[in-house]
Amino acid sequence: MKKIAVINGPNLNLLGRREPEIYGRVSLEAIQQALEERFGGRCSLTFFQSNSEGGLIDHIQGLGGRAEGLVINAGAYTHTSVAIRDALLAAAVPFVEVHLSNVFAREGFRHSSTLSDKAVGVICGFGPLGYELAVEGLLEAIGA
Amino acid sequence: MKKIAVINGPNLNLLGRREPEIYGRVSLEAIQQALEERFGGRCSLTFFQSNSEGGLIDHIQGLGGRAEGLVINAGAYTHTSVAIRDALLAAAVPFVEVHLSNVFAREGFRHSSTLSDKAVGVICGFGPLGYELAVEGLLEAIGA
Amino acid sequence: MKKIAVINGPNLNLLGRREPEIYGRVSLEAIQQALEERFGGRCSLTFFQSNSEGGLIDHIQGLGGRAEGLVINAGAYTHTSVAIRDALLAAAVPFVEVHLSNVFAREGFRHSSTLSDKAVGVICGFGPLGYELAVEGLLEAIGA
Amino acid sequence: MKKIAVINGPNLNLLGRREPEIYGRVSLEAIQQALEERFGGRCSLTFFQSNSEGGLIDHIQGLGGRAEGLVINAGAYTHTSVAIRDALLAAAVPFVEVHLSNVFAREGFRHSSTLSDKAVGVICGFGPLGYELAVEGLLEAIGA
Amino acid sequence: MKKIAVINGPNLNLLGRREPEIYGRVSLEAIQQALEERFGGRCSLTFFQSNSEGGLIDHIQGLGGRAEGLVINAGAYTHTSVAIRDALLAAAVPFVEVHLSNVFAREGFRHSSTLSDKAVGVICGFGPLGYELAVEGLLEAIGA
Amino acid sequence: MKKIAVINGPNLNLLGRREPEIYGRVSLEAIQQALEERFGGRCSLTFFQSNSEGGLIDHIQGLGGRAEGLVINAGAYTHTSVAIRDALLAAAVPFVEVHLSNVFAREGFRHSSTLSDKAVGVICGFGPLGYELAVEGLLEAIGA
Amino acid sequence: MKKIAVINGPNLNLLGRREPEIYGRVSLEAIQQALEERFGGRCSLTFFQSNSEGGLIDHIQGLGGRAEGLVINAGAYTHTSVAIRDALLAAAVPFVEVHLSNVFAREGFRHSSTLSDKAVGVICGFGPLGYELAVEGLLEAIGA
Amino acid sequence: MKKIAVINGPNLNLLGRREPEIYGRVSLEAIQQALEERFGGRCSLTFFQSNSEGGLIDHIQGLGGRAEGLVINAGAYTHTSVAIRDALLAAAVPFVEVHLSNVFAREGFRHSSTLSDKAVGVICGFGPLGYELAVEGLLEAIGA
Amino acid sequence: MKKIAVINGPNLNLLGRREPEIYGRVSLEAIQQALEERFGGRCSLTFFQSNSEGGLIDHIQGLGGRAEGLVINAGAYTHTSVAIRDALLAAAVPFVEVHLSNVFAREGFRHSSTLSDKAVGVICGFGPLGYELAVEGLLEAIGA
Amino acid sequence: MKKIAVINGPNLNLLGRREPEIYGRVSLEAIQQALEERFGGRCSLTFFQSNSEGGLIDHIQGLGGRAEGLVINAGAYTHTSVAIRDALLAAAVPFVEVHLSNVFAREGFRHSSTLSDKAVGVICGFGPLGYELAVEGLLEAIGA
Amino acid sequence: MKKIAVINGPNLNLLGRREPEIYGRVSLEAIQQALEERFGGRCSLTFFQSNSEGGLIDHIQGLGGRAEGLVINAGAYTHTSVAIRDALLAAAVPFVEVHLSNVFAREGFRHSSTLSDKAVGVICGFGPLGYELAVEGLLEAIGA
Amino acid sequence: MKKIAVINGPNLNLLGRREPEIYGRVSLEAIQQALEERFGGRCSLTFFQSNSEGGLIDHIQGLGGRAEGLVINAGAYTHTSVAIRDALLAAAVPFVEVHLSNVFAREGFRHSSTLSDKAVGVICGFGPLGYELAVEGLLEAIGA
Repeated sequence: MKKIAVINGPNLNLLGRREPEIYGRVSLEAIQQALEERFGGRCSLTFFQSNSEGGLIDHIQGLGGRAEGLVINAGAYTHTSVAIRDALLAAAVPFVEVHLSNVFAREGFRHSSTLSDKAVGVICGFGPLGYELAVEGLLEAIGA
Repeated sequence: MKKIAVINGPNLNLLGRREPEIYGRVSLEAIQQALEERFGGRCSLTFFQSNSEGGLIDHIQGLGGRAEGLVINAGAYTHTSVAIRDALLAAAVPFVEVHLSNVFAREGFRHSSTLSDKAVGVICGFGPLGYELAVEGLLEAIGA
Repeated sequence: MKKIAVINGPNLNLLGRREPEIYGRVSLEAIQQALEERFGGRCSLTFFQSNSEGGLIDHIQGLGGRAEGLVINAGAYTHTSVAIRDALLAAAVPFVEVHLSNVFAREGFRHSSTLSDKAVGVICGFGPLGYELAVEGLLEAIGA
Repeated sequence: MKKIAVINGPNLNLLGRREPEIYGRVSLEAIQQALEERFGGRCSLTFFQSNSEGGLIDHIQGLGGRAEGLVINAGAYTHTSVAIRDALLAAAVPFVEVHLSNVFAREGFRHSSTLSDKAVGVICGFGPLGYELAVEGLLEAIGA
Repeated sequence: MKKIAVINGPNLNLLGRREPEIYGRVSLEAIQQALEERFGGRCSLTFFQSNSEGGLIDHIQGLGGRAEGLVINAGAYTHTSVAIRDALLAAAVPFVEVHLSNVFAREGFRHSSTLSDKAVGVICGFGPLGYELAVEGLLEAIGA
Repeated sequence: MKKIAVINGPNLNLLGRREPEIYGRVSLEAIQQALEERFGGRCSLTFFQSNSEGGLIDHIQGLGGRAEGLVINAGAYTHTSVAIRDALLAAAVPFVEVHLSNVFAREGFRHSSTLSDKAVGVICGFGPLGYELAVEGLLEAIGA
Repeated sequence: MKKIAVINGPNLNLLGRREPEIYGRVSLEAIQQALEERFGGRCSLTFFQSNSEGGLIDHIQGLGGRAEGLVINAGAYTHTSVAIRDALLAAAVPFVEVHLSNVFAREGFRHSSTLSDKAVGVICGFGPLGYELAVEGLLEAIGA
Repeated sequence: MKKIAVINGPNLNLLGRREPEIYGRVSLEAIQQALEERFGGRCSLTFFQSNSEGGLIDHIQGLGGRAEGLVINAGAYTHTSVAIRDALLAAAVPFVEVHLSNVFAREGFRHSSTLSDKAVGVICGFGPLGYELAVEGLLEAIGA
Repeated sequence: MKKIAVINGPNLNLLGRREPEIYGRVSLEAIQQALEERFGGRCSLTFFQSNSEGGLIDHIQGLGGRAEGLVINAGAYTHTSVAIRDALLAAAVPFVEVHLSNVFAREGFRHSSTLSDKAVGVICGFGPLGYELAVEGLLEAIGA
Repeated sequence: MKKIAVINGPNLNLLGRREPEIYGRVSLEAIQQALEERFGGRCSLTFFQSNSEGGLIDHIQGLGGRAEGLVINAGAYTHTSVAIRDALLAAAVPFVEVHLSNVFAREGFRHSSTLSDKAVGVICGFGPLGYELAVEGLLEAIGA
Repeated sequence: MKKIAVINGPNLNLLGRREPEIYGRVSLEAIQQALEERFGGRCSLTFFQSNSEGGLIDHIQGLGGRAEGLVINAGAYTHTSVAIRDALLAAAVPFVEVHLSNVFAREGFRHSSTLSDKAVGVICGFGPLGYELAVEGLLEAIGA
Repeated sequence: MKKIAVINGPNLNLLGRREPEIYGRVSLEAIQQALEERFGGRCSLTFFQSNSEGGLIDHIQGLGGRAEGLVINAGAYTHTSVAIRDALLAAAVPFVEVHLSNVFAREGFRHSSTLSDKAVGVICGFGPLGYELAVEGLLEAIGA
C-alpha cells in the first residue's frame, strides 16, 4: 500500500470553530477520520498539522522515504512561503494542493500560491470533501 | 435524481489526439463514459462541447431549469471570456471549474480565470479523473 | 428618416430574467417596443441580438449602407472584443455605447471597453431608459 | 415637483469659448436654458458653477434637503477629487455624472473618475444634450 | 503652555450627520469640546476646518509661530494634496495625522497619504477618540 | 506538393472596402489570386475566412492531415484569442503569422499577440504582399 | 474587568538595545510596566513576545476566550504574514495594530500591512506611548 | 510690448522663509523685481500668487486677452491639478513651466507634471534665476 | 535602380558561428551574396555591419541621399537604442526591420523594439531568408 | 574665466537638417556661435559632439580639471545611458541638462532621463535658445 | 581572532541530497569543514542551521557580542523574510549574503532579496566555494 | 594553464579617482596586479577596459578560443546592454559578473542586470577583492 502524508498548515487545527461561515463546521479530526474510512484500504495515511512554517518544513523533510505522495493544505503559508515550496521540491514526492474555501473568491492575495506550479494538481472550494478528492487524485497520479 | 450538465469548451473535442503530452490520451467520449459509469446511479448527466463562445453561451442559456449543477471546462475561454461568466451567472446554477492540465504550471495567461471567483470550486491537473472529482464535489455542494 | 440599428450582445436576450437585481425586470422586447414608440416617428429602427461575437460582426458588416447610426450594448464583449471594435470601424457609422448597469460600480474588468474611444458617446446605469437616451443622443449626433 | 441641482466644475463657465473643437460652441447659460425648457414642468432646477473644489463642496453640502437629485459635470476634478466624491456621499442624494466630450477618446488620465462608481449612471460625449439626457435619466432613477 | 492647532479638512464639518455608519454620530464641535476638557490644562488648543485646499494652506501658513504642533485630519485631501504636504513642511512644525475611520479598511485610494511620511505618527480607526490620542501623542513628541 | 492553408480572421472579408487608409484597396480575393499565381506551381493552397472565433477553430481542426503549413492573419483575434492559439498547437503544423498593417504602429493593444511565440515567424506592414512573403517563408521553413 | 492581550512580534524583545535611533531606548519591559500603571485599574493585561510566526499564532489561538481585545505589534511579520492575520480573524476578537516607528517614513515594504484592514485601528510613530494610546483606543472600541 | 503673466501656485508666497535649503532665501517679491528690471523694457509683466487651485483658475480665466504668454510655477498643483491644465488650454496662450528646485532630484511624485506636455518648455533647478530664463524663453517663443 | 542599404548590428558579424541553434549556420557574407543574386538586377545593394551603436548611427547618417530604403537588423540594439531610432528618423528613408530568430519566442526583453513603430514593416523568424523577404517588401513599399 | 564644456550627443550633428519640424532649422554650429557671442566674455567655452556613447564618456573623462561646468544635451542617450550618468558623476562637475524639443510632449520613453536627478537643472523646449539659458543657469550655479 | 558566524536557513540541512542538479552533492558538514580548514587559522567560526524563521532570529539575536561578522545563506527566507533583515540590522554586525545556486538564473521570485541592500556584499552561483569566498570577503571587510 | 580574460566596462579606468566613497581608492592597475600575484601561477590572465559598448563587444568577439573563462565588470552597461549579453553568449565561455560596490544598496536601476542569468555566478560589494573572489570562483567552475 502507498504511503500518503496529509499535511495541514497554520490555523487549520481550529477547523470547525474558526470562521465557520468560510471554513465550515467540520473539525480536522473528522476530516482525517473520513479519509481513513474512504482510503484506509487503498493506502496508508499519516496526518500532521503545524502553525509553524519551520515545523512544516521539518516534518516534510522527516518524511524522507516514508511517503510516496503528499496532500497539503498549507493554509496562509500557501501565499507567502517559498521555504515550504523548497521543502516539497527537496522531498521530490508528488503532492496535491488543497484548500477548503474557494481561494479565488476571496482576497486578492489568496489568488497566488507558491506551490501550485509544482503540484500534481490543485483542488479548492469543496470544504472537507476536498481532501478526499485530493487523495483520490493523488493516488491516481502515483499509479496507486 | 439531480440533473448535471458537463460542458466542454474549445479544442476539447480533440482530446486524446491533441498535444497528448499535456492533455493525455483519453478521449472526451471516454471521459463521459467514465462519468456515466461512476455517477449514473446518483445523477442524470448531459454532455456538450463547442468550439464557439457563442455556442457555449447558447447552450448554457438553454439549460434553463434542466440542470441543477454544471461542471465546466471552458478550455481557452477560461482565460478570455467574460460572456461565459455572465451566462453562468444568468443561469444561477452552482458550477465547478475543471481543467485537465495543471494550468498553474503553464503559461502565465493560463493562471487567471474569468470564472473561478463565481465557481463552487476549482479542480485542475488530474487529467480525466478531474471530471469525476468535479462531479463528486458538485453533487456534495448541491446536497445531492 | 434616418436608419438606426440597435445591437445587443451576449446574454441580453435573457433580460428581465437574468440577475434582475443588476439588470432589472424589463425584457429586451419591451425595450425595443419603447424605442419604437418614442422614436418611431423620427427614425427607422432595426434590432439584433446575438450571443456570438462572430454573429455580431457578421450583422454589423451586413448593415452596410442600411444604417446611418448604431446603438450597441455589446454586453460582456465590450470588455474583451477587439473584433467588434474593428467591425464598427469598418462600418464607418457613428455609434453610441450603452449599458444597462453602471459598469463602473461593478468588477474592475467591466471598467474598460474596447469600444468607448471610438464611440460618439457612452451611457450607462440607466437601465432600459439608457437605450432611449442613446438613440436620442445618436440622432442629435448624426443631425437627425 | 422634484428638486434637481445641476452642478458644474472648473472651466465650464467658459463653455462656448473654451477649446470649441472639443467642447462645442454652446454656452453654459444656453445649456441651462434648454434644461429649463425641457424639464421646467417636471422638476425644479437649480444651477451652480465653480472653479473651486472647496466651493463645489460647500455648495453640495449646502443643498442639504433642498435637492432630491444631482447632475454633476465635475470637469477636471472628476479625475482628481476624492473630496467631491465624499461630499456627494455625505449628501446622500442620487447623482448622475455627465461630460460634454467623450472622455474615453481623450488623454488617459481622463478615463478614470472618482465619482462614477457611486453615480446612478454616467453619460459622456453628447455635448450640451448630455445634460438633458442626464436629467431625464436622473428623474427616472428617483421615480420622478 | 504649548500651542496646538487642530485642523480638519473637507466634509468634516458634517461630522455626526455624514455617513454616520462610517464616521459616527459625534459632531466636530463635540470632538473639540472633548479635546478642550482633556487637554485644556496641558496645552492651548485652536481649531480650524475648511472644505478648501487653498483655505487649509492659507490657515497653516498663517499659524506661523503661533503653533508648536499640529493635529491634522485632512479628510479626502490626505490622498490627493501635495500642496498641503508642502504647507506643513513649510510650517516646519511637528504634526500628527489622524483619521476617524480605519482608512485601510476602505477603498484602495484611501490607503495612501501624501502626509504620512512626514508626520510624527498616524492614528486611524478610533473615531472621535482618535483626536485625543493624537494630541496626547503630539504633546509627548514635542516634549510637552 | 506541400499543402498550405491560408486562414483569415474577422473583418478581413471586407478588405479593400474597410478603412482603406489602413488596410489598402486590394480585396482578399485578389490576394488569394496573387498567391495562386506566385506559388501555384510550388504548393497547393486553400483559403478560409471567418468572422467567428469558433468557426476558425473548427476550420483549423478540420484541416487535420490536409495541411502541412498554415499562414494565418487572425485579425483582431490575434490580440485576444487563446483558443485559436490552442487550435494551432493542436494542429501541430508550422504556421506563419501575417498582418497587413504594421501593428506596432497602431494602438497598444495590437502590439501583443497570443500566437507569435508559437509561430515560425511574423510578418507585418507589407499589405497584400505580406501574404506572399509569408508563404515563401513558410515553404522554406517546412523544407518545400 | 476586560482582559487585554498585548502581543509583540520578532525583534521587539531587543527593544531599547536595537537600532535605538529608530526604536528608541525604552525596553519592552518598561513599556509593559507603563501599561500596567496606566490601565491596571481599568483592565487586566497579559503580555507575550515571540520571534516565531508560528509561536505568535499558537499564542493567539491559545488566548481563546481569555482575551476580549488585543494590541499587536507584529513587527516585521506585519508586512509578510497572512497566517497571523488568519489567526487574528479566527480569534474573532477586536485588535489594534501598533508600531513604535512611523512605518510610512521608512522603506516601501513597511508601508503595507496584512493586518490593517481587519484592525479596529492603527497607531504608529509614537514610540512606547503608542502602546498606551492603543490600549486606550481598544478599551473604548470594546466599550470598556 | 507683449503682455506676460507670471503666476505662482501654493506656498510660493512663503519663498525665502520656507525650507530655504530647498527653495533658497530669495523672496517672491525679489524675484518679481528682478524680472521687472531685466525684462521691463521688453515686455509688460503682471504677477499673481494664490494657494487656491480655484483661485489660480479664476485668475488664468480672467487674463483673457490681457496676456500673450504665461510663466507658471504651479508649485504642488503641478503634480495633481488637471483643472489648471484645462484652464491653461482654455486660455490658449503659450506658457512656460518653471520650478525653483530640480523636481527630478526630489520625491517621485514630483517627477510628473500635468502641464509639461502642453508647455512651450520646462525649466527647473535654477532657483530665482529660473523665472528669468523662463521669461526669456517665452519671449522668444512668442516672437517678442 | 533604387539604392538599398542593408545594415546589421552587434554580433551579426559572427553569424554562422554564434549560437547556431538560434541563429543558424549561414554566414552574413552568404546572406549578402544571396541578396545580391536575387535582387542585383532590381536594385543596388550596400552592406554594413558594426558592433558599435555610434558606428551604426554614423553610417546611417552618412548614407544621406545615397540610399532610398534600408533593411536593418539592429540586433540587440533593437531593444535598447533610442539613438538608432533617431538616426533612422533623421535619415527620413523607409526602412524594414528584420530579425533572424523569432524574437517573440525568446526572452521578454526581446519582445519590444524601439524601431518597429516607425518601420514600414517587421519580419522575424525566417533566418537568412528574412533578409530577402525584407528587401522584397521594401522594394514594393518604395515603389521599386 | 570659468571653463564651460558644451557636449552634444547622437544625431545632434544633423541639427538644422534633421526632422526640422521637431528640431528646427538652426545648425549646431550656429548654436555654438551664438553661445560664444553671448558668453564669450563671461566664460571660456568648448564644444564636443559625438554619436558614440563611449566617445561621449571618453570626452567627459578627458575634461578632467579643464571644465568647471558642463551643459549636456545627451540626445537619445538621455533616456538609455547609465554610463554617461556615471561619467558625469565621476567628473564631479556641475552640469545642466538641455533639450531642444519639449521631451514631455513627445513619446513616453522620452519622459525619463538617467541624468536629471543629478543635474543642477533641466531646460527643454526652447530650441537653440535653450543652450543659452542653460549656460546662464550654469554660470549662476557655479557662482560665475 | 575575529569571530565569524555562518548561518544557514531552511532546507540547507539537506544539502547534498536535495535537488543535486541545482544545489550539488556536497553536504553542509563538508562545507563547514572546508571553511574550518581554510580559515581556521584566521578566524573563529561558528555554524548554525535552522528551518525556522523564528529560530534563525533567535540565533542571530543570541550571537550578541559573540560574532564580529556573519555569513548568511537564508535560503528561501531570503526572498520573503523582513524579520531576518531586522534581526541582522539589530545585530549591527557586518554580514555577507551567499547563495549556492545563481539565484538570477532561477524563478523570478528568487531575484529579490530582503537582505542584499544591507549586506557588505552578495555572492551567488559558486556552490560550496561561495561560502569560502564569502568568508574571505567578510574578513577583508571587517579588517581581519 | 587556463586562459582567463578580465574585462572592465565604462568609467572603470577612473578607478581610485572616481567617487572614491563608492568605488574606493584602489586603481584598476593595482587590481590587475593583485590578480596577477594571486593567480599568476594558476592561470594566464589578460585585461581589457573600454568605455565603449561596441569596443567591449569587439574585444569579447576577438577573444575567440583565446579565453577559457571571463570575469566581467560591465559597469553601467550591466544594466542597459543586451548586446554585451549577446556577445558573451556568442563567446560561449563561462563568465563571472563582478561589481566593486554593492549594487543592491544603490539606485533601483542598478538592481537589474542583463548578464546575471547567464553568468556562472555574481559577486558584488567587496571592492577590489571582488575580482580575486571572481577569478577563484571562475577557476573552480571551469575545473581549473
